[in-house]
Amino acid sequence: MALIVQKYGGSSVADAESIKRVAKRIVDTRRAGHDVVVAVSAMGDTTDELLDLAGQVAPIPAPRELDMLLSSGERISMALLAMAIHSMGFEARSFTGSQAGMITDATHGAARIVDVTPVRLKEALDEGAIVIVAGFQGFNRDTRDITTLGRGGSDTTAVALAAALNADVCEIYSDVDGIYTADPRVVPKARKLDVVTSEEMLELSANGAKVLYIRAVEYARRHGVLIQARSTFSSSVGTYVLGPGMTLPDGEGEEMEEPIVAGVATDLTQAKITVIGVPDVPGKAAEIFKVVAKSGANVDMIVQNVSIGATGRADISFTLPKTDAAAALKALAGDQPEIGFESLVHDDQIGKLSVVGAGMRTHSGVSATLFEALSVSGINIEMISTSEIRISVVLRGDDLAEAARLVHTAYGLDGASDAVVHAGTGR
Amino acid sequence: MALIVQKYGGSSVADAESIKRVAKRIVDTRRAGHDVVVAVSAMGDTTDELLDLAGQVAPIPAPRELDMLLSSGERISMALLAMAIHSMGFEARSFTGSQAGMITDATHGAARIVDVTPVRLKEALDEGAIVIVAGFQGFNRDTRDITTLGRGGSDTTAVALAAALNADVCEIYSDVDGIYTADPRVVPKARKLDVVTSEEMLELSANGAKVLYIRAVEYARRHGVLIQARSTFSSSVGTYVLGPGMTLPDGEGEEMEEPIVAGVATDLTQAKITVIGVPDVPGKAAEIFKVVAKSGANVDMIVQNVSIGATGRADISFTLPKTDAAAALKALAGDQPEIGFESLVHDDQIGKLSVVGAGMRTHSGVSATLFEALSVSGINIEMISTSEIRISVVLRGDDLAEAARLVHTAYGLDGASDAVVHAGTGR
Repeated sequence: MALIVQKYGGSSVADAESIKRVAKRIVDTRRAGHDVVVAVSAMGDTTDELLDLAGQVAPIPAPRELDMLLSSGERISMALLAMAIHSMGFEARSFTGSQAGMITDATHGAARIVDVTPVRLKEALDEGAIVIVAGFQGFNRDTRDITTLGRGGSDTTAVALAAALNADVCEIYSDVDGIYTADPRVVPKARKLDVVTSEEMLELSANGAKVLYIRAVEYARRHGVLIQARSTFSSSVGTYVLGPGMTLPDGEGEEMEEPIVAGVATDLTQAKITVIGVPDVPGKAAEIFKVVAKSGANVDMIVQNVSIGATGRADISFTLPKTDAAAALKALAGDQPEIGFESLVHDDQIGKLSVVGAGMRTHSGVSATLFEALSVSGINIEMISTSEIRISVVLRGDDLAEAARLVHTAYGLDGASDAVVHAGTGR
Repeated sequence: MALIVQKYGGSSVADAESIKRVAKRIVDTRRAGHDVVVAVSAMGDTTDELLDLAGQVAPIPAPRELDMLLSSGERISMALLAMAIHSMGFEARSFTGSQAGMITDATHGAARIVDVTPVRLKEALDEGAIVIVAGFQGFNRDTRDITTLGRGGSDTTAVALAAALNADVCEIYSDVDGIYTADPRVVPKARKLDVVTSEEMLELSANGAKVLYIRAVEYARRHGVLIQARSTFSSSVGTYVLGPGMTLPDGEGEEMEEPIVAGVATDLTQAKITVIGVPDVPGKAAEIFKVVAKSGANVDMIVQNVSIGATGRADISFTLPKTDAAAALKALAGDQPEIGFESLVHDDQIGKLSVVGAGMRTHSGVSATLFEALSVSGINIEMISTSEIRISVVLRGDDLAEAARLVHTAYGLDGASDAVVHAGTGR
């Protein structure tokens, strides 16, 4: 008998039928002899609908009240889920974030978990009940106010509960049946990975893979929680995310050799800004990125062209989320006289392709394969950035899908048949 | 400076526009120099929608989970209301039933308030904030679970807060601007009452007046809370509900003479069951009403016809809510052999008219006016029941409206002009 934590996202509990399906899945796990703790998100689009209402009554909603509002979404889904399980003849009890002992700091809208004291959950488990916990929400001890954890909060709730309860595994359910070597909608021959390291997952996640949130993967790595990414709609075992020193439940994977490349990630959400004619004197880059940071933009890749000839000027390009571009451009234009650059070029037609693999550390020549695959097909590389286990390139957005398929093949990642693509959005 | 408790029902906060209108009203009260505590219901039909969802996932929802579910409705409305006030430049803080110290017994779905410990509300008031409290919900100390108070719960929340905080007045807002001498939709010449005693209110309420819930009026009477029933949509002062020994805020009303008749109430929600040919031996009535009570029916009026001639049998008629009739009939039919009656007659075309007035106690001839008014118009009275301050008669449902108008005139209650009838449902 194991203790299993399961997390179901909004699309898994979008309506009464989905809730009953999830309830059956939970009951099946209980029937198999396991203790079950479930973290659940708000139903379907509830959170967006509540945000919309908030926007209608207040242009800038008070953060404390916004958290009070949003936290009601999970109360609805968790109570319905507990009822559905109850009506199948199993004892189930739902708990809010504060009842579950999810203690956070006081940062409304993006609270960090500082402690988990699941006293009531343990009592309920000891009494044989299935435990349902509201994802995404917590409680601050000093203000005694309700907080929310922000994006990916329910994944983090699940992993934090798994850590605090010393669970055997934390199953994160979505409408995708695991982590793929690439986005199956872009690369039809993408294969589901049985295992991925948490480092690889962090890079894949940051590069646009939407199955797991970075924050939850980081929490799991730090606290030694084994994550299993699975589909609500199939019985496939999904993908295990292994942290350092972790092993798979059946003892496999210990001697598993790390693959050189685990997957290829694609991202069309970034834009590129080029600052042209920056005076080639020390401190100019710092000036530029201080201005950009102040605009609230989250800069990803940065490339500085060498200063050509005797102009004494260089070009600096960087990528950032498309949604941050307008603010960054405005901020830069405002400080043009001080910085002394010549002009700004905004390009929102780029695509980013990343090759990720923990095995890269010990293998040379990995980047050559990437460049070769792209150059043979005449696809131009505009920017390059690398980390220990990742190589990312910026291309024309129109080239991204073809590039991903070529690179996927070049690294020998192609599966025998095309992957099944699900209709859902993954969240 | 006074401390004012206000309660807004679901129709007053049905959408973003309504919430902003209520927020403005609250801010106006604060601007006038008063401390304000607000109890708010769930938006519009939220509670019914949640109940519908519950019915879809579980035929008989677990009561603990149903309360968890329903309590989310008020969290949404209170957070939105606090945001709206906040964005008008006033400090506002929302509190759940448990945060507000609304301690109840553990009866899910119909919890009774056992204590109110508004520590956090007092702190917030001391800091100059407007306090918004979720109506309808509480918290049980032993189970540490969330409870709901049942029908009319938000009115009760408001009155209980007013009692615990020693508020100067508890303003109950709805879409009706006070208590009327009759339902204006039935009797166009109905007048708004400036003052009504809580005893009269209890009788009017029980007889179908929908402005205030009996339970809240009783709580107010027991704890000396002055209720003012007002409209969200006008600035009319509404109607004060005076408990024993209470006076109006401006000292008026102390020497006010009680009117003989305060109002006329009409009710079309009852049905009549007649048990024909009941053996005229002791204990038969007890048998019948034991069976009816076991079916869950809530019996109102009872009349037993005298046993006629030598048959040794009598007829017993009683009224009950239409919705309870089927169950009561089934229960009686099942026990027909034991009870020994001859047959059952079900009549759901009745109407009930009640004349209510605290002054009846000291005045004779009040019932004569009623019977005279009806007999002149040839309206037949089928049943009669009286209390110290009320006379009720059962008539044909089709006659009810005409009867109400005639009786209203006969008691001199008619106003100079027709009352304004609002479109809303009163709840």
